[in-house]
Parts: sequence; structure tokens; C-alpha cells
Amino acid sequence: MLNFNFQNTTEIIFGKGVETQVGKKAAEYGKKVLLHYGGTSLKKFGLYDKIIKNLKDEGIEIFELGGVLPNPRLSLVKEGIKICKDNDIDFILAVGGGSAIDSAKAIGAGVKYDGDVWDFFEGKVTVSETLPLGVVLTIPAAGSEASSGTVITNEEGWYKKSFGGNVIRPKFAIMNPELTYTLPGYQTGAGAVDIMAHVLERYFTNEKHVELTDRLSEAVLKTVILNTPKALDFPEDYNARAEIMISSTIAHNNLLDMGRESDWASHGIEHELSGIYDITHGAGLAIILPAWMKYVYRSNIDRFVQFAIRVWNVDMNFNDPEAVVLEGIKRMEEFFTSIDMPTRLSQAEIDSEKFEEMAAKATEHGTLGNFVKLTKEDIVNIYRLAE
Amino acid sequence: MLNFNFQNTTEIIFGKGVETQVGKKAAEYGKKVLLHYGGTSLKKFGLYDKIIKNLKDEGIEIFELGGVLPNPRLSLVKEGIKICKDNDIDFILAVGGGSAIDSAKAIGAGVKYDGDVWDFFEGKVTVSETLPLGVVLTIPAAGSEASSGTVITNEEGWYKKSFGGNVIRPKFAIMNPELTYTLPGYQTGAGAVDIMAHVLERYFTNEKHVELTDRLSEAVLKTVILNTPKALDFPEDYNARAEIMISSTIAHNNLLDMGRESDWASHGIEHELSGIYDITHGAGLAIILPAWMKYVYRSNIDRFVQFAIRVWNVDMNFNDPEAVVLEGIKRMEEFFTSIDMPTRLSQAEIDSEKFEEMAAKATEHGTLGNFVKLTKEDIVNIYRLAE
Repeated sequence: MLNFNFQNTTEIIFGKGVETQVGKKAAEYGKKVLLHYGGTSLKKFGLYDKIIKNLKDEGIEIFELGGVLPNPRLSLVKEGIKICKDNDIDFILAVGGGSAIDSAKAIGAGVKYDGDVWDFFEGKVTVSETLPLGVVLTIPAAGSEASSGTVITNEEGWYKKSFGGNVIRPKFAIMNPELTYTLPGYQTGAGAVDIMAHVLERYFTNEKHVELTDRLSEAVLKTVILNTPKALDFPEDYNARAEIMISSTIAHNNLLDMGRESDWASHGIEHELSGIYDITHGAGLAIILPAWMKYVYRSNIDRFVQFAIRVWNVDMNFNDPEAVVLEGIKRMEEFFTSIDMPTRLSQAEIDSEKFEEMAAKATEHGTLGNFVKLTKEDIVNIYRLAE
Repeated sequence: MLNFNFQNTTEIIFGKGVETQVGKKAAEYGKKVLLHYGGTSLKKFGLYDKIIKNLKDEGIEIFELGGVLPNPRLSLVKEGIKICKDNDIDFILAVGGGSAIDSAKAIGAGVKYDGDVWDFFEGKVTVSETLPLGVVLTIPAAGSEASSGTVITNEEGWYKKSFGGNVIRPKFAIMNPELTYTLPGYQTGAGAVDIMAHVLERYFTNEKHVELTDRLSEAVLKTVILNTPKALDFPEDYNARAEIMISSTIAHNNLLDMGRESDWASHGIEHELSGIYDITHGAGLAIILPAWMKYVYRSNIDRFVQFAIRVWNVDMNFNDPEAVVLEGIKRMEEFFTSIDMPTRLSQAEIDSEKFEEMAAKATEHGTLGNFVKLTKEDIVNIYRLAE
């Protein structure tokens, strides 16, 4: 087991009706709030009015910035920074999923920094201070509600990059599973894959003595596998929605990193896809994960056998462990298909034209991943396996 | 799933050699430190000298209070409060296991309160402020290193009582598994039972939709079951010690409380035992848990079947689920026996003389537990089952 530090300070406020606590919680941190969100669904389902009233009841002055897109853009982040600086805003409230929260995190860091906020993403500077941030979560997927990272797309060159630090974790996350009842099936499915991917990026490690975090990881995977079909069949199944929602947080709040090196190659490979083709992140991961697994499993058969047996209930075959691994990957693909996710690039109408370009971008700072260190050529091969 | 709040701010600093960070971490919180610990083992194995040097290197003034006993006493807490008040101490460093940490938590709360510190334990007042507390953990068991509670024994009447609040969680916990190599086998075994008991008190709930926390709980139980025999056989097995140590934290930091009502009857029943007979808490739990299970399992057979199958790998018997339950409890008893823990009161030389008295004390504020609400008579019956 590797040495580690773990601290997650985000307060999780979870359950039916908890969004009515947003005014009181926000008032603990500021009197002038930037309300940051995405599109029209917020207003359509009444949550917007509820939050506005709740904030006003606490005497909070509200500034708004909507329009966050999936794969959130740097230009909007810069707009948010300007609004905050011009109006001495002291708190940000993000309402939505990972896109709104990631955008808010970048705004919060940018407000406290005199240079270009993109410097954080390029690793030129480390984040040490930020505006406090609260979250009302409506899409369980990215785990950004309690995570230490943010991913933003720079439209100049379509670079999708991330940065992180404990200081950008939200102060609180208000999570009512009822708010996810209206999520379209596609977003429910893509969210489930994203949650699973966050676990898998950590699960596939070469560190052998990680018994507890292996089993905690399997707990999250099994919970998502069991509950996502329920949520798709019965969108108002509170308990299925609740299991998925809390899984999104646990998958990505660094609990599952304890004592192990994680991989993150699949995310890197997918980021190039969604950076260029603007495909939903979870759908992109459903395509990349099986291809990545098929490409790397021979480097650590034992770990993939454990994955197949413990997560996908494959029977052990002592004469042919490789068959066990392939059956596990096949069951994962079948699961993705069953929740209406693509597992091949062709299903997302992506051809081989930009394989070389994407692989080059993914490796411009060196190899990708830790489980197996992937070169540009490896990544082209993985894209080919995903065709 | 029930509504919940979860926030755990304790910074876990985990791994080989991390105790050398104690000076720098302590200096973040104070310049005058109360060093609080138990007996002589600390000095025997060199940790004491290392910590003193490390604190002095940061220019920290050290006040010492050793002598914490298992089932820590109120009188020492009061002594600690006086030392802190007399010397304007601004930080407490607890070195040891749950006893030293619980004692330090009570001291920290008492310093900031004008009345009698026992008021907190009697529920007369809620804790809102405390001296900051850091921990160097040497006994993985109680989980107090990141928990929100403290348990203290009042020698006047031998009452063992607890209180809690997020504010008393330690600021940081320094956890080096190597520091547990010298733990006697008995303490290793008792610690394992304590960790398992913390999970089981939460696992046995009547809330049905707690899939994720069920599986996270099973992950901790299986990890402890697998690694405790290894640590007993090879006390310097770093990875086994590490798995147990981090399990102690996860078992009791409230992660496993998410969305569920927990029980705590077994702890209540055991507290009377260790309050009167001064038996090691974990050993007392190894006696009480099987008896409690045998007494209550019929109230929720399904949950006990799940426990037997998922934790103890019992095969399902659809014709006789009760046999499955009993086999699960039997395997748990066999496991306790295999790690040299008692499973009957007679093994601890405790007879029936005080059953009535203990049961009366345990229920003086009403019934005990939530899974089944136990009356005085029920508790006497459970003690009898444990004879």
C-alpha cells in the first residue's frame, strides 16, 4: 500500500427536500452570490424559482450566469470571473452537474488570480485560494460536487484540460435524488458510465496491497450496475436515484485513491474525443473503456480476473484465466448496451480521420496513464479497437 | 434511504514514516501543546523521543499528561482541562489509540466550557467549541482518530458515557502502520472486533434501501476478516497492518451511516460490562455481538441472511433461511475464537451476579438500540445467552 493523504471537507446534505436549505447554507459564506447554471431545464422544472426565493429570503444579492454547456468552455469561465470581480461577489452557487460545477470551480480560482485562468490548466501555477463554492446537484455523474478537480475546454484549439487542489472542493453539496427524476435516459446512462469510469481509473492499478479500496470500489460499481437499469425503467424510483447519486460522490471524492496509484488513461483518451467531437463524456467513456481494457489486460491478468469475478460474477476458469477476463469485458459492454450507451465509435458516427491527431494531442506531454504507460501509437491502436 | 448530512474534515496522513510530519502539522494549530498519552509502551519503542524532538524542532512548548487507561477516566480528563487552562495551551496532541484520543477530545471540549465537563456526557449541553486536536495513532480499533465521538468512564458510579459533534473530530490523524507492529496479539484481536462492531452497529438497520452503504460495510468487514489473522501470524506484515488501520477509520468516520439508522445496542450492553469489570472493549464486544444476534435475528431474517451470505460466504438454503443465519453467526464466533477473543462471559470470568444491575443501568434512559428496541428484560436475556 502506498502512502497517502486524504481529506474531504465537503459537507454532503442529502435527501428529499434538502434544496430548501440552500439559502441558509449560502448565507454562511457570502451575501453576494453568482448563481451559475446550464440550460433551460432548471427553469422548466421549478428548481430555479425555488432557489431564487430561498436565496432572497436570506437577503442574498444574486448575480446570474447561465449557459454552461456540456464540456464547459473557457470563454464562459472568463465571463464569470469578470462578473465576480466587477461586483465583488463573495460566493458561487453552481446548480447542475459536473459542467456547471467545474465551470464554477474555474471561475472561483480565476477570481483570486491576477493572470490568465488557463495558467492553472497548463500547470504554470498552483491554486492556493478561491471563492467559496456551493452546489445544488441535479446530474449525478462527474462527482465534481465533492471532488478536488475541474475540467474545462479551451475553444482555441479545443484543448480539454484539468487542474485540481483540495482548496477548490465545494464547501457543501445539496443532493436531492428527486431532482434527478426528470433526467433524460441518455444522461442517466452516460452519468452511470462516468461514475463507473471514475472507479475503474482507480481500480486498475499495479499496487497489489489495496484490499480495502478494491472492495470499496467494487461496492460502488455493483451499486451502479444494479440501480441504473431501475432508474431507466422507473425514473421516479427514489432509492435507485439515491444510490446512483451518492455513488457519484464516493466514486470521485478521493476515498478510492487511498494507498494506490490510479490510471486515468481512458479519461485522457476520451477527453480528446469529446474535446473535438463534443460527444457526451460518459458516452465517450463507454466506447473507450472496453477498448482500453482489451489493449492492456495482458499486462496484469490477475487484476482483470478479479474485476471479472467480483464485479461481473464470472466463474473462475483455472485453465483459461484470459477467457475469464474477456468474459468480464464482454459483460461490461453488454451492460453499457443495456443502458443505451454506445460501445463503438461508429455508433457515435466518429471515423478514423482524427485518430492520429487525437493521439498526438493526448501524448504531447508524454505517455498517458499509469497502469500501462501508453504512447501515441498505443492510443491510435485503442481508437482502432473502438471502431 | 433516509436523509443525511455527512462531512468528515479530518486529514488522514497515512503511511511509512509519516510520524515525522507531526511537528509541522502541530505548528499549524498551536505553539503550546498538551501531549496526551497512555502508558510506557510509547517510551519503550522510541516513538516518544521522536515526537518530542519533532515538536521541539518547530519551537513548540510541550506540556505532558500521560497515564490514560483503557476505558479512560473522567478524573484524568479533569486534570487535563486544568493543565490546559492554567497554561493557555492552544493545541492537544493525542498519541495512542481510542482511549488517549477520547480523553483528549473530552479535555478539548472541557477547556472551552465553564461548567463541569460531565455535562456534555449527560446531554445537559451540546459541544460547540473545542481546542484543536491532532492524533498520532498507534492502536487501530476505536476509529476515534476521525470520529465525532468520545466515550469516558466516570469513576463515581462507573458510568461509561459518550457525547459527540463534528467540532470534536481531530484536525489530522497521523497513521503509520509500522507503529502497530509491537501491538500485542490480544490488542490486535480486540481492535479487529471493535472495528467490525462499528460496522455491524450500522449494518443492522431496518432501512431497506441502503445498497451502497451495505456493500461498503461488507468491504470493511471482509478486509478485517482477511487481514487480522495475517497480522497475528506476522506482526510486521506492513500491508495487513495497513489494511486494518485504514479500516478502523472508515468503520467509524460516519461514511457508513449514510442514509440509514444505526443500532448501537451491542455497544450499550458492552459499555456496562467494561464500565464495571474493566474488560477490554473489543473483547467485551466479541462476547456480546453473537448473543445480541441470536436474540434479535428473527426480527429481520433477510438482513441476517445477507450478512451470512455476503460476509461469511454461507451458501443460501432456500428451504431454511434461519439455518443460513445461524451458520453466519457461528462462523463469526469461530472467527473471533481464531483471533483469540472470548465469545462467552465465562471466558472473561464474569458471572451472572450483576446482569440485573447492568441491564438496569443500560436502560435507565429508555430502551436500547434501534434495530430492535431492547428493554431491561431483553438485555438480561442477552447477557444470559452470552454466559
